[in-house]
Amino acid sequence: MADEKTLVRFGILGCAEIARKVCRAITLSPNSTVYAISSRTIEKAKQFATNNNLPELVTIYGSYEEVLDDPYVDAVYVPLPTSLHLKWAVMAANKRKHVLLEKPTALNVGELDQILEACESNGVQFMDGSMWYHHPRTARMKEFLMDPNLFGEVKTIYSSSSFLPPPEFFENNIRTKADLDSLGALGDAGWYCIGAILWSMNYKLPTTVTALPATIRNTNGVIMSTTVAFYWEQEGTTATFYCSFLSHETMDVSVLGSKGSFHVEDLIIPYEETSAPYYFTSCASFADLHLGWSVAEQEVQVHNELPQEALMIQEFSRLVQEIKDSTITPDRRWGGISRASQVVLDAVKSSVDNGFKTVYL
Amino acid sequence: MADEKTLVRFGILGCAEIARKVCRAITLSPNSTVYAISSRTIEKAKQFATNNNLPELVTIYGSYEEVLDDPYVDAVYVPLPTSLHLKWAVMAANKRKHVLLEKPTALNVGELDQILEACESNGVQFMDGSMWYHHPRTARMKEFLMDPNLFGEVKTIYSSSSFLPPPEFFENNIRTKADLDSLGALGDAGWYCIGAILWSMNYKLPTTVTALPATIRNTNGVIMSTTVAFYWEQEGTTATFYCSFLSHETMDVSVLGSKGSFHVEDLIIPYEETSAPYYFTSCASFADLHLGWSVAEQEVQVHNELPQEALMIQEFSRLVQEIKDSTITPDRRWGGISRASQVVLDAVKSSVDNGFKTVYL
Repeated sequence: MADEKTLVRFGILGCAEIARKVCRAITLSPNSTVYAISSRTIEKAKQFATNNNLPELVTIYGSYEEVLDDPYVDAVYVPLPTSLHLKWAVMAANKRKHVLLEKPTALNVGELDQILEACESNGVQFMDGSMWYHHPRTARMKEFLMDPNLFGEVKTIYSSSSFLPPPEFFENNIRTKADLDSLGALGDAGWYCIGAILWSMNYKLPTTVTALPATIRNTNGVIMSTTVAFYWEQEGTTATFYCSFLSHETMDVSVLGSKGSFHVEDLIIPYEETSAPYYFTSCASFADLHLGWSVAEQEVQVHNELPQEALMIQEFSRLVQEIKDSTITPDRRWGGISRASQVVLDAVKSSVDNGFKTVYL
Repeated sequence: MADEKTLVRFGILGCAEIARKVCRAITLSPNSTVYAISSRTIEKAKQFATNNNLPELVTIYGSYEEVLDDPYVDAVYVPLPTSLHLKWAVMAANKRKHVLLEKPTALNVGELDQILEACESNGVQFMDGSMWYHHPRTARMKEFLMDPNLFGEVKTIYSSSSFLPPPEFFENNIRTKADLDSLGALGDAGWYCIGAILWSMNYKLPTTVTALPATIRNTNGVIMSTTVAFYWEQEGTTATFYCSFLSHETMDVSVLGSKGSFHVEDLIIPYEETSAPYYFTSCASFADLHLGWSVAEQEVQVHNELPQEALMIQEFSRLVQEIKDSTITPDRRWGGISRASQVVLDAVKSSVDNGFKTVYL
């Protein structure tokens, strides 16, 4: 445990459901602490503190502005509806708070660019709240993916991210409202598919993005489900993904290379908190008479000391601390990763909005 | 073991590599026997008999016609290049031989219809050589798929079928030649993806079929790799598949429903001969705080007494025997399954040939 003085002090803007998980992660991470929480009313914020067993020392505010004005707050976590990200992330950066922003990062890349510019000009760290990047399994899969002998070149990628919420979700949840999270299932679940696909391609943008007419919207025009195809012309690589609020829970990624392949089924939230598997096959060929495979699929279990969300907080806090200590300048890589996802997400939205035409990037 | 007299007597047209596996399957199946083999030269046929330890009783012919003229031959297995299927399958049916035809069944559905008509008018059984339909795992997965409480409605399907052959394949193999197997990777590997997707949809044809421009052809114009998207308008269901001769070995199928999902990675050739796994999840939701899943994926191992190719022969031979005994008329279901795959395969080919336009079925 780091000295109390060196802990990065988080302020939390809003008491969304996901904030409960991230509060716990901030507490679990050895270099951070929940310093302040806020909601639009003080009562709601107090209730959140009680429900989540936050220590009495935590400052409770009845407005987001007060968190940003608190000089002891180092960093903010922003789980607000996407339509509020631009305003509050920019304001936080301008108040010299480091910004951990829930995904999708913005309604479009124009908004995200304003956020990134505000972070850049104020010298604060930006990171989005995609947790799976921080699991050691992800690093292990990347090693395999980058191995020219075991994996080779990426040929195709498939991902799905879906869940079936209860009926009240479709009435009340912000992810079904055009004025709050107008990107719907694309912004929520599809964000992960896009991220996983770009991760597989080292964040190189696809040449084309095409949504399928199977896209389903609710009465507010918000996307509830879509299937999308990507194509990288130079590499000849393809990817497809499916995201949905209308299907059983999935978090699949399959990456197929010239010499190997791997897949996971629990990318976004591992089945277990302390270990997560991936499955790979490499240099397989048909056995004699095609009666089997020369090698079978192998399971690799990757142990993690902390849950992936705590690892995210730990990495973000490490960067914040080193920036505070003037050891480093903000790591722009995280903003770049978010921006690539947002650019592709915009292209999918554009394809859907324009009769499923192919969008060229 | 059935009485020698009641064994279905197979004649084999051609000594293709795959014929070795099917010869073994005919021997393993309790109701069939390899009665005659043939090649374009008697020497090649003799060599095949020696290499595969066929009993001396097996009749060896130096032409396909002789097999068809042998009155003791009940059924033929036809592993010839696709461009020869129409001629030899029709001729076999007209000689009252039951026809087990290697996939892809024909160069296009017009040809297949001629084959099916010849079988129909001669009262002989037709079946294509797709082995995975006959594995008990397939039946078990279908039970899960059809369960309204555990699986629900099909939402999306993904399949890949690929392998990376040695360099000489691209010089010599019939699957790279425009005059022999002009459907290339689509006809060979893609056939399985199309079959698995249609199987998931109870053989309902998709509304639209669209190939992606990522399609790669060799210098003969034969497809080496393609990615394809399907859409069923009424159901709102989508499917995507990737087939290739340029990628690591995969045989993936993932089927996602409203309440459950399942996947396999070794559909076409199971890793093991005596047992094959599938993996399913049903009615999963997020655990509290989204720290995990309410239920994790489960593995089911399905034991098989005989390899799936022997089960295919056993089922085909059972039908042949019952037709011979006048207990039943030919089962048209198998021709219907082949025809659905061929129709969709034609649509993919048409999309590729017409600048990746969407084809409406």
